[in-house]
Amino acid sequence: MNDSDVLKEKSLQYHSSSPKGKIAVSVTKPCSTKQDLSLAYSPGVAFPCMSIKEDAENAYLYTAKGNTVAIVTNGSAVLGLGNIGALASKPVMEGKAALFKKFANIDAYDIEVNTSNVDDFVKTVSLISTGWGGINLEDIRAPECFIIEERLKQEVDIPVFHDDQHGTAIVVLAGLINALDIQGKSLESAKIVINGAGAAGIACADLLVKAGVSKSNLIICDSKGVIHSDRQDLNFWKARYAIDTKKRFLSEAVLDSDVFIGLSVKGVLTTKMVLSMQKKPIIFALANPDPEILPEVVKSVLPDAIISTGRSDYPNQINNVLCFPFLFRGVLDARAKDITDAMKIAAAYAISGLARNPISSDIIYGPDHIIPSVFDTRLIESVSSAVAQAAAQ
Amino acid sequence: MNDSDVLKEKSLQYHSSSPKGKIAVSVTKPCSTKQDLSLAYSPGVAFPCMSIKEDAENAYLYTAKGNTVAIVTNGSAVLGLGNIGALASKPVMEGKAALFKKFANIDAYDIEVNTSNVDDFVKTVSLISTGWGGINLEDIRAPECFIIEERLKQEVDIPVFHDDQHGTAIVVLAGLINALDIQGKSLESAKIVINGAGAAGIACADLLVKAGVSKSNLIICDSKGVIHSDRQDLNFWKARYAIDTKKRFLSEAVLDSDVFIGLSVKGVLTTKMVLSMQKKPIIFALANPDPEILPEVVKSVLPDAIISTGRSDYPNQINNVLCFPFLFRGVLDARAKDITDAMKIAAAYAISGLARNPISSDIIYGPDHIIPSVFDTRLIESVSSAVAQAAAQ
Repeated sequence: MNDSDVLKEKSLQYHSSSPKGKIAVSVTKPCSTKQDLSLAYSPGVAFPCMSIKEDAENAYLYTAKGNTVAIVTNGSAVLGLGNIGALASKPVMEGKAALFKKFANIDAYDIEVNTSNVDDFVKTVSLISTGWGGINLEDIRAPECFIIEERLKQEVDIPVFHDDQHGTAIVVLAGLINALDIQGKSLESAKIVINGAGAAGIACADLLVKAGVSKSNLIICDSKGVIHSDRQDLNFWKARYAIDTKKRFLSEAVLDSDVFIGLSVKGVLTTKMVLSMQKKPIIFALANPDPEILPEVVKSVLPDAIISTGRSDYPNQINNVLCFPFLFRGVLDARAKDITDAMKIAAAYAISGLARNPISSDIIYGPDHIIPSVFDTRLIESVSSAVAQAAAQ
Repeated sequence: MNDSDVLKEKSLQYHSSSPKGKIAVSVTKPCSTKQDLSLAYSPGVAFPCMSIKEDAENAYLYTAKGNTVAIVTNGSAVLGLGNIGALASKPVMEGKAALFKKFANIDAYDIEVNTSNVDDFVKTVSLISTGWGGINLEDIRAPECFIIEERLKQEVDIPVFHDDQHGTAIVVLAGLINALDIQGKSLESAKIVINGAGAAGIACADLLVKAGVSKSNLIICDSKGVIHSDRQDLNFWKARYAIDTKKRFLSEAVLDSDVFIGLSVKGVLTTKMVLSMQKKPIIFALANPDPEILPEVVKSVLPDAIISTGRSDYPNQINNVLCFPFLFRGVLDARAKDITDAMKIAAAYAISGLARNPISSDIIYGPDHIIPSVFDTRLIESVSSAVAQAAAQ
């Protein structure tokens, strides 16, 4: 068997061993005696019900609402798998719920909404939102994901967060802050190319600009090349980044740039392109599982480049797990009604700060350690408190 | 403080003590190492996803779906509280989830749907149904509950069960089978009055008829009196039970009857009415918390009457917990696509059978023990296997 076959066998066994799947429901209060049941259920349960009817805020006091997140998808853009549909995405959503619990003790449950219709999706999520503390949108394709998130943010009174957009953007920003620091560059002056204008690419651009990157230093490319002002095929979200330029191809965009952020596909960044960048370049090759260029290829031609991927078997893994459990911990703790740009940027700086102060002496802040490990036990305190603090301002 | 104040204080403290509410999410698989995460999440999770995409049935093999129940409400008819709305009903729904887990190890989670519109409710539940093993509708007012259940049964491919209707009907039937046995009467010949024509009343009538009660022996009353064929104000569900009779009032309906089943309001059954019934009457006074007549009042005038209530502080408590966890256990184990009348009747006979063979020698099958305790440990095996067997036929 090759490596992929071994992983497949292990994964299917992991998922099918009893109890099947990855999450369950547990009971947090005594429920064994007649007396217990008279509190948990009839007749005692009437009192918290009436209290919540009088003031909806009391749901945070008498129910699990304040510690819950609904992980909601339609399965239209799952990991590297594409549009596999609602039910087939359930293993990913259960995995996400497991990560929420393990990393931040948040009770997240998966809701698969079986529709590709934006109106139906929004209405469904809106109608079931009242019982939850927050909504984590997941694996919804662009550009629908932008519309869905924007409309839900208006319609519901709990925080809504599309992790594929903002979780990725936050961790990219965290890594980039440190990579620029190590290379002696700055957010304000770095010339940046983002390749990929889907959910993550657009969200990265948005957050980088909010964090200090100049739009004039930013070029975004999609599968057709540079997003420029003569193109007629741009959706609203891409059009915001169209620039006046003669550059047409990725190779032209990358020339003389400091930073390449790939959220696209395998192998599109060539050695020649890397060599055309400014000295000490920063390359985030985040296509999964096969990056836009392999780290060993970059290092062989430019040893002082900093390279980051989405993979756990290379240094500097950009992994959303660094953010979403802890960000939501802060959001729920602060009972924030919304997740603002200030909160996202605070999360990014909190994550980057941990890499600068490594948790153990065998880790040295530098080109191969621009980002902390997902197992860094300080993340929960550091990120959640930074987010809660930003929420309070 | 009076008893109600004490219960209120205890209940609010129970619900607000940390962790708030009554249920949480737990992780059932190892999720601590990089290796674990490569199976639970990226990249290993892609394999169960693709397997489910190929065959939706594989969701039962690789996810928690097969052991889950969505407890869905709009909060329009909660316990004795009425239409308190979606969010205020959450403590009841969490309590129900806790009972599912404690009694039958089923992972149930509450979904509050914030609408009183039948179409929107049905569409919402239909769109989110794919990730669940079954749907337990809860505390939805009549007659909307009938339409909602019927439409969902047609639209979704997992079992749908409105517990307020069928759970109640099953436990009533279980108790009635034994009460008739003890009084030397039979389902086929007993004259039965059902007072209350809401969700539970109509469902009781339906199930009793399926179980052998003759429609000609059945009179149903609502708040306006006997449901007879000259009434112009009957909805479709009540009209099915309209009979050709001169009787107009409950007192006339009850005259010479063998069985009174109250699913109505406090105190509507008088001593005089009880005395007008056949000898050895059976009285199910199930209004909660205050029954249609108090057991001690009945016993004082008719010591050989059998009386049952919804309360735990009297003998013969008709409690849905006797049914729904175990019925769903059987349904999920058999992976039944629907919950049929045969399965409901099998559940009722399994429950009544346990009362006839008491679990300990200090319980004697008889007028004060027509129904087992909710803590009877044989329920899980007995009811679930009877239901699964009926599902297989």
